[in-house]
Amino acid sequence: MIRFYNARILTMEEPLEIISGELWTDGDKISYIGETPAELPEFARGIDCKGNLLMPSFKNAHTHSAMTFLRSFAEDVPLQTWLFEKVFPYEDRLTAEDVYAFDRLAILEYLAAGTTAFFDMYFYPESTVQAAIESGIRAVLCGSVSGSAKDVERLDEQYRRYRSMHPRIGYRLGFHAEYTSDESLHREIVRLSQAEKEPVYTHISETRSEHDGCIERHGASPAQYFESIGMWEMGGGGFHGVWFDQADRAVFRRNGLWMVSCPCSNAKLASGIAPIREYLQEGVNLALGTDGAASNNALDPFREMYLGTVLQKLRTMDAAAIPAAAMLKAATVGSARAMGLHDCDILAEGKQADLILIDLHAANLQPLHHIPESLVLSGDRSNVKLTMCAGAILYEDGVYHIGAEPEEILADTEKRIRRLTE
Amino acid sequence: MIRFYNARILTMEEPLEIISGELWTDGDKISYIGETPAELPEFARGIDCKGNLLMPSFKNAHTHSAMTFLRSFAEDVPLQTWLFEKVFPYEDRLTAEDVYAFDRLAILEYLAAGTTAFFDMYFYPESTVQAAIESGIRAVLCGSVSGSAKDVERLDEQYRRYRSMHPRIGYRLGFHAEYTSDESLHREIVRLSQAEKEPVYTHISETRSEHDGCIERHGASPAQYFESIGMWEMGGGGFHGVWFDQADRAVFRRNGLWMVSCPCSNAKLASGIAPIREYLQEGVNLALGTDGAASNNALDPFREMYLGTVLQKLRTMDAAAIPAAAMLKAATVGSARAMGLHDCDILAEGKQADLILIDLHAANLQPLHHIPESLVLSGDRSNVKLTMCAGAILYEDGVYHIGAEPEEILADTEKRIRRLTE
Repeated sequence: MIRFYNARILTMEEPLEIISGELWTDGDKISYIGETPAELPEFARGIDCKGNLLMPSFKNAHTHSAMTFLRSFAEDVPLQTWLFEKVFPYEDRLTAEDVYAFDRLAILEYLAAGTTAFFDMYFYPESTVQAAIESGIRAVLCGSVSGSAKDVERLDEQYRRYRSMHPRIGYRLGFHAEYTSDESLHREIVRLSQAEKEPVYTHISETRSEHDGCIERHGASPAQYFESIGMWEMGGGGFHGVWFDQADRAVFRRNGLWMVSCPCSNAKLASGIAPIREYLQEGVNLALGTDGAASNNALDPFREMYLGTVLQKLRTMDAAAIPAAAMLKAATVGSARAMGLHDCDILAEGKQADLILIDLHAANLQPLHHIPESLVLSGDRSNVKLTMCAGAILYEDGVYHIGAEPEEILADTEKRIRRLTE
Repeated sequence: MIRFYNARILTMEEPLEIISGELWTDGDKISYIGETPAELPEFARGIDCKGNLLMPSFKNAHTHSAMTFLRSFAEDVPLQTWLFEKVFPYEDRLTAEDVYAFDRLAILEYLAAGTTAFFDMYFYPESTVQAAIESGIRAVLCGSVSGSAKDVERLDEQYRRYRSMHPRIGYRLGFHAEYTSDESLHREIVRLSQAEKEPVYTHISETRSEHDGCIERHGASPAQYFESIGMWEMGGGGFHGVWFDQADRAVFRRNGLWMVSCPCSNAKLASGIAPIREYLQEGVNLALGTDGAASNNALDPFREMYLGTVLQKLRTMDAAAIPAAAMLKAATVGSARAMGLHDCDILAEGKQADLILIDLHAANLQPLHHIPESLVLSGDRSNVKLTMCAGAILYEDGVYHIGAEPEEILADTEKRIRRLTE
């Protein structure tokens, strides 16, 4: 049992409010939130929070973690050049061991930024599972098949292997995107989804050309085409959704789907600005993801929240476009629920102890006029003092507790990157 | 004398390249940059940089430092409400002691983010001077008069008092903006500028309504109107420049003026996106500033560089809109020169030792494919290990050396903020 005391606590239950008190963990769960009682049980450790803020950790609802190896490899080049000359040829060379190494690099960054779970779409899922289990972080794998009906076999296989292999590993059905697969694949996934009663996830309407291309190919936008063939009957969601119009948003709302927005990636690749204001106004479930480090270039929930907010102000030319706290909700509660992590969403007794401690004494968060808003508009990942996943402290004051030293992880990735990119 | 060794060094001399070696300081100056010589003099301290990066520190070329007290005080409200209900009434209550306290809070944030100089426009310049001198940071005050000709007396007075009072304090002639002053003030400043051979600075074309209003009032945009009355004959520059058209940019180019862009403030207040690509393409001198913390909400050069870059990609829908390194240049060399700090711009023997050490081993900067670009697109202020101004280490690994404890500064500001905003 770990005791956090003298804390401000933002449970993220609505309406948002900051309470003063303490939080205890027992094993992987939160066992108590409230005032200091007259009698205290014995604790393995007591942490004086000194008025700092306990809140749910961030969850990264869309990423390709191992793409850390291509971070800053090709900057300021057009999208097609970037993808076909600077990404695909290098990804082709990756081994399972490489993906494990580059996932570990991403995990260093996730934990220092207060992220305890990531929704990953990439090659060699066995490597991601290994890296996550060893480090103590939580990973939900997302299927990413492309091609035609026969390729769904691999998805089915992975789903059965990973769906309940470990308490910190999850698996969701998914495919890469409409434009990298044909209708036979889509219909086979619908069949699998309905047979297993499992939601489905995919990249959707990230770029204008992909969105318009689907209309040409299928006579409807991706969101509407997929609805017409039953893809959304078990729920699920889409990544990006930059080019959604009102009818697309209505599809997501009425099917209870999750829109996972990736503002930084959409900005770096000049894909556009997603209509986040409309998602919020129209009641679409909103989550946040970083996408891969090659197209971001950071795996940082603070940057996503910040950019997600200010881009709406610029897009609508309205400084009051959206409430900043909506981004904090998307990056924590929303992203957890989008990934199916319903016991990791808010701080409450019985929920998983996936939480962070924010240093409110840092100059950039002073004064404390409006804490939730300030986290979004003023905060950054240097304000994360401690990151706990499933009751285990994995990062504290710059030190990792993940069963490996950062120096070793860096030395390993450096060697591999030299081989891959020379 | 301090010796930095085992360093990567980015002097910011063009063309940008990373050299390996060491850098020595002597008093407030850089005394050596190069390989390790056969014989070494005695040093007061030797710092093993372990392959980390030495580079010029950031300079913040537009700010209102003491506005830290209104950070996150009113979020997500329209500009006019914000300014007239949430800023002006509270600024009216400020005392000189308050400004000193809130400047000290800003200085904590500047130093932790690698900023060693700021170009400040605010009330009670004597307080800013005191806070800067005591802490060891560099401040250049910018005149901010408004009204009519008689108000220029105060500017003249401040200019004479501060222009050479201390090696780390500077003063530049300036006025608040076209829309808060009349032609008699403008002409009086032209007279003073030409008599003293001093450049002039002002807020310019920040919002569309202010830009268009000047055309109505004076028959020309601010840049063109001021050129017509001789305001730019001694050089200088403008803050924001969001609404500049090609003719305005030509005015700045032909007069060698500095455009100080503030991307984060322009985003938060929904003022718009400055045409930074055009500034760069057309050869306008570019610097970066944060504006005040109330409209940003951070005093963070990394966020300005990042947003400055990605907003151009979105504005032009071109992922290759501008080279990321241009933002690094603007935030260091450009901003130093905009403020007249020509001996603090690059790392070179004889220049001021105003520099930072960047932790290249941090996961978010790995791998090291392209370091200057990575600082802009992947870096953040948590990567700053050490900040030196005028040869003195003011910040190192989270610890300040500024003659005051952060706790004391925070306690003082908290008390004052409670009084001001209750």
